[in-house]
Amino acid sequence: MAEAAAIKNILDPALVLGFSNLREMRTVGPHRIAAGHGIYVTDTDGKDYIEGASCFYCSALGFSEEELVEAAVRQFRELPFYSSGLHRAVPAVMELAEKLRDLTPIKNAKIALGATGSEANDFLLKFVRAADRMTGRSGRWKVISRLRSYHGGTLATASMTGVPESHAQFGLPLPGFLHTHQPDYFNMALPGEDEAAFTARMLGDLRDLIEREGPETIACMVAEPVSLSAGLVPPPEGYWAGLQALLAEYGIRLFADEVITGFGRTGPMFGSETYGIDPECITLAKAMSGAYLPVSAVVMAPDFYDALELASDEAGGFTHAGTYAGHPVCAAVALRTIELFEERDILGHVARIAPRFAAGLAAFADHPLVGDTRSVGLCGAVEFVAAKAPRRAPQPEGILSKKFAAFAKDRGLIVRMPYNSVCLAPPLVITESEIDEMCARFGRALHDLEAWAAANPEDF
Amino acid sequence: MAEAAAIKNILDPALVLGFSNLREMRTVGPHRIAAGHGIYVTDTDGKDYIEGASCFYCSALGFSEEELVEAAVRQFRELPFYSSGLHRAVPAVMELAEKLRDLTPIKNAKIALGATGSEANDFLLKFVRAADRMTGRSGRWKVISRLRSYHGGTLATASMTGVPESHAQFGLPLPGFLHTHQPDYFNMALPGEDEAAFTARMLGDLRDLIEREGPETIACMVAEPVSLSAGLVPPPEGYWAGLQALLAEYGIRLFADEVITGFGRTGPMFGSETYGIDPECITLAKAMSGAYLPVSAVVMAPDFYDALELASDEAGGFTHAGTYAGHPVCAAVALRTIELFEERDILGHVARIAPRFAAGLAAFADHPLVGDTRSVGLCGAVEFVAAKAPRRAPQPEGILSKKFAAFAKDRGLIVRMPYNSVCLAPPLVITESEIDEMCARFGRALHDLEAWAAANPEDF
Repeated sequence: MAEAAAIKNILDPALVLGFSNLREMRTVGPHRIAAGHGIYVTDTDGKDYIEGASCFYCSALGFSEEELVEAAVRQFRELPFYSSGLHRAVPAVMELAEKLRDLTPIKNAKIALGATGSEANDFLLKFVRAADRMTGRSGRWKVISRLRSYHGGTLATASMTGVPESHAQFGLPLPGFLHTHQPDYFNMALPGEDEAAFTARMLGDLRDLIEREGPETIACMVAEPVSLSAGLVPPPEGYWAGLQALLAEYGIRLFADEVITGFGRTGPMFGSETYGIDPECITLAKAMSGAYLPVSAVVMAPDFYDALELASDEAGGFTHAGTYAGHPVCAAVALRTIELFEERDILGHVARIAPRFAAGLAAFADHPLVGDTRSVGLCGAVEFVAAKAPRRAPQPEGILSKKFAAFAKDRGLIVRMPYNSVCLAPPLVITESEIDEMCARFGRALHDLEAWAAANPEDF
Repeated sequence: MAEAAAIKNILDPALVLGFSNLREMRTVGPHRIAAGHGIYVTDTDGKDYIEGASCFYCSALGFSEEELVEAAVRQFRELPFYSSGLHRAVPAVMELAEKLRDLTPIKNAKIALGATGSEANDFLLKFVRAADRMTGRSGRWKVISRLRSYHGGTLATASMTGVPESHAQFGLPLPGFLHTHQPDYFNMALPGEDEAAFTARMLGDLRDLIEREGPETIACMVAEPVSLSAGLVPPPEGYWAGLQALLAEYGIRLFADEVITGFGRTGPMFGSETYGIDPECITLAKAMSGAYLPVSAVVMAPDFYDALELASDEAGGFTHAGTYAGHPVCAAVALRTIELFEERDILGHVARIAPRFAAGLAAFADHPLVGDTRSVGLCGAVEFVAAKAPRRAPQPEGILSKKFAAFAKDRGLIVRMPYNSVCLAPPLVITESEIDEMCARFGRALHDLEAWAAANPEDF
């Protein structure tokens, strides 16, 4: 198996791991995941895990889809690499763009490609500067996003990411990145405040931010249809309609970051469809290729693209490119992924199976440490509380979700644990019996957490 | 072959092409490259081309290396995807990092991975903010790079890229990105100025820039050992030694962007070795995987990394990651690429063959439209002039190199054409007879250019 002798340093590895305690790597070393099959991954000790979060919400088709390997091999043997730029393009890359144009809710869209979700979001922030410049909106250089939403790892997209704790390490955000509320009704509603009033307050605060900064300085707002990085925060009543009206009033463009919600995660193909959002541009990655290879996309409305064409006219060309912005093999794999979505009616499967997933999570709602369960499509969250009535959030924040994730790992289930929630978002190809098994493992871990909580009442 | 019926729109494609005249795509459509073999690529009309620039300096091992396909397939079937983050890692990704640590001139380096050269450079600019913050250098947030050097397509790396014409389209650079001279002795030397005096002037201007901006505000300088994007500008006498001394005097870190020069392009494995440079960090991409898949790396000196570890200590973790920062299949392909470099002694091959390449280019030096020929390892440039004595540069800039590139394409040779130069940088696996064939095609195109120039003396 994969644990080759070549790894000289399990402890103190040369590799710098993301989102990890770096010093711990010197003494503990990383947990090594070496194989995958279906919804399962296996570590170097041979222990298997249900990847309950599709590894960062990526592995829509699981970890052993031979069709995608074959698609890669076909393109490798035809033309393993060529950049689509300088008036040259590779047919497979063009085909992927045509397919995305047919698929996305933006009519007659134009498609720019990248390698990662970070790149898609970063490139879009770059493109809007050109589009605004060509449409008499040059003073608009600021970007609004939402607290607790993740948008990427580059300087600009990390700035857009609404996590002050992450910002501090790198002296971010860069100037011009503004953050508004994550509309988290469960945690942020005032006593007695109903959803409509909560939404009005959230949007009122956004309006204040816009007025304070000057609407004429703000280019766009970027948001996920529903934020898994914030813990699958459901948009409260009237949120999207109100938000769109507010932005339209100020001429602020709305872009949907569908890097996670794209490709069936919330049920429909795109989260924008699930929530009735009409964004001017959409970014895609992750499930677009089942994460078999790195590829991402910026989907642009025709009017937006036309402004880029004007910028190209002015300069004699579009002065943006990326060597791997549309890698042929990555594009071929993404194209085949989308075909498999269609051939196998993955959306139909998600629709059929989502109720069992929802019911499985809802069954935990009565647990004394569970404050909320929620789901949409094949993503769901369980939010922990220290006490239910009166409700008390765990302290320090995340203590119960982190503890739970460790117990879940022992029980063979990998989850994400944003803040006080754990998120489940299994591969879309999961079966009913696998959902049952996932929920059974979840239940065992919850039992472990309960035992820990009983023994350590002072700790949370 | 690759021209599938699925490409509905050759004209007005959905795909937005980089570095292209976007409006032209509506009437002409992209030139479609569909297949590759060895140093050749083939378009959809069946015409073949020597990829004289390895497609953006990427395809070190050519376009039909079955070993890399097999390496990809092995990893695909073992574990097609898993992120290395959250204290989890994939053996193949760890192995690649160990291999890079052994290989690079920075002793005991730590390696962070990305998907693209843009990401590697962007992540490094992010990392240095944390490293500076932890080492009492918090006020240092500005970045110096060189005019005409390309460093990437993200907002930050496009800002670092020293091309004002590209900046204008997107309202760049962002604040804090400073640009100093490209030390282009051929074009920028004053009458009678020798190389040493020229270098002193270049570095004097850099010193002025540093003093003007305040050395305590400047984090780092990022530069390629030799800039192909600027037209393979050779460092003039004393340049690197003087530059390093100057930066050291002001406590400004030096990072080498070896996205193009890494992996044998200039002869030795890294351009830093070729030119005797001692950078604190190095970025890598492109040839690292033969461009068979997107993968990049940030190589960090131990002291630099230690500062990131302190930042991680402070926050309880390193708050940077990337879903595709170390994709297992991409890592496996990069690892196999590096093994092939060793097994086949690619560097030895480059050393043996570089003189023939150099001689092939030098043979054009006497041509009336050629002002200069130069080469190092397997990259070279031919710089055009409108007249040799007294020397007159082509007007408008780039007219002759663009014309030449079009003739070369007709003659079955693809070149890059920065400014008034054309660059050749063929796959490193090129043979002597293929070098001869490449130079023959070059010569035919030069003949075409001469005929055009004779017929259109007013045009340049």
